[in-house]
Amino acid sequence: MESPFTDEYFMKKALQEAEMAFEQGEIPVGAVIVIDNKVIARSYNLTEMLNDVTAHAEMQAITSAANYIGGKYLKGCTLYVTLEPCQMCAGALYWSQISKIVFGARDEQRGFMTLGTQLHPKTEVKFGVLAKEASELMIRFFAQRRKK
Amino acid sequence: MESPFTDEYFMKKALQEAEMAFEQGEIPVGAVIVIDNKVIARSYNLTEMLNDVTAHAEMQAITSAANYIGGKYLKGCTLYVTLEPCQMCAGALYWSQISKIVFGARDEQRGFMTLGTQLHPKTEVKFGVLAKEASELMIRFFAQRRKK
Repeated sequence: MESPFTDEYFMKKALQEAEMAFEQGEIPVGAVIVIDNKVIARSYNLTEMLNDVTAHAEMQAITSAANYIGGKYLKGCTLYVTLEPCQMCAGALYWSQISKIVFGARDEQRGFMTLGTQLHPKTEVKFGVLAKEASELMIRFFAQRRKK
Repeated sequence: MESPFTDEYFMKKALQEAEMAFEQGEIPVGAVIVIDNKVIARSYNLTEMLNDVTAHAEMQAITSAANYIGGKYLKGCTLYVTLEPCQMCAGALYWSQISKIVFGARDEQRGFMTLGTQLHPKTEVKFGVLAKEASELMIRFFAQRRKK
């Protein structure tokens, strides 16, 4: 029997978080962190509500996962995030030594891959998982914001 | 009469923060954020105590200054930090649109200048202010840690 715990499975959970951001008028990015097929952190972008540029989904998830683990290194963990992380988030992921990063849509302008931010050499990266869904949510958000 | 509010004046305050980190067994990096010659945020590295790789002095100072201002952009603000910011902190400073960054010692390995992290185009950078003092504190810290 195939395991239900695919990358798509967990990315759907990250997308649910992004929907929460959307509903609160935040740029819709969501994240979860998983260890041994268990979600140990979930979060969404809160930069507007918290008036804080550091409150990206990934940053909150890193802090939250470290609290759960009781240590600051996220070895054995996978981050699922709907959008390509920015320099700040990739820089935090570097320090966390996280084992794997899976993201949905590319951010061609401000994403860490475009800008060349260094990850930890042990961190594996995969992208394009439910990218269409993540992009559509972003497009819908900005279309709605322009109307206001 | 010369203004007492020089870059050295505020960097001394950042060094005092770094000393606080030192006393608590944290890698000794300190920061203050200043607007109109007034310190509106002060912080030091707390990654060990908080078990959180995101708890760098600069990150805490950015969040704290935004709280003080009541908005997430740090236009008109200057960050003084004893060590060259890393990718994560430079990435956060990019989003903050901070007007000026003054740092003391270079971090040739993990500093944002070495790693090419992009700052906001309006952000001015100055470094080397009390660099010797900042470096000596780091050297003293690691020498002490090796003895333990």
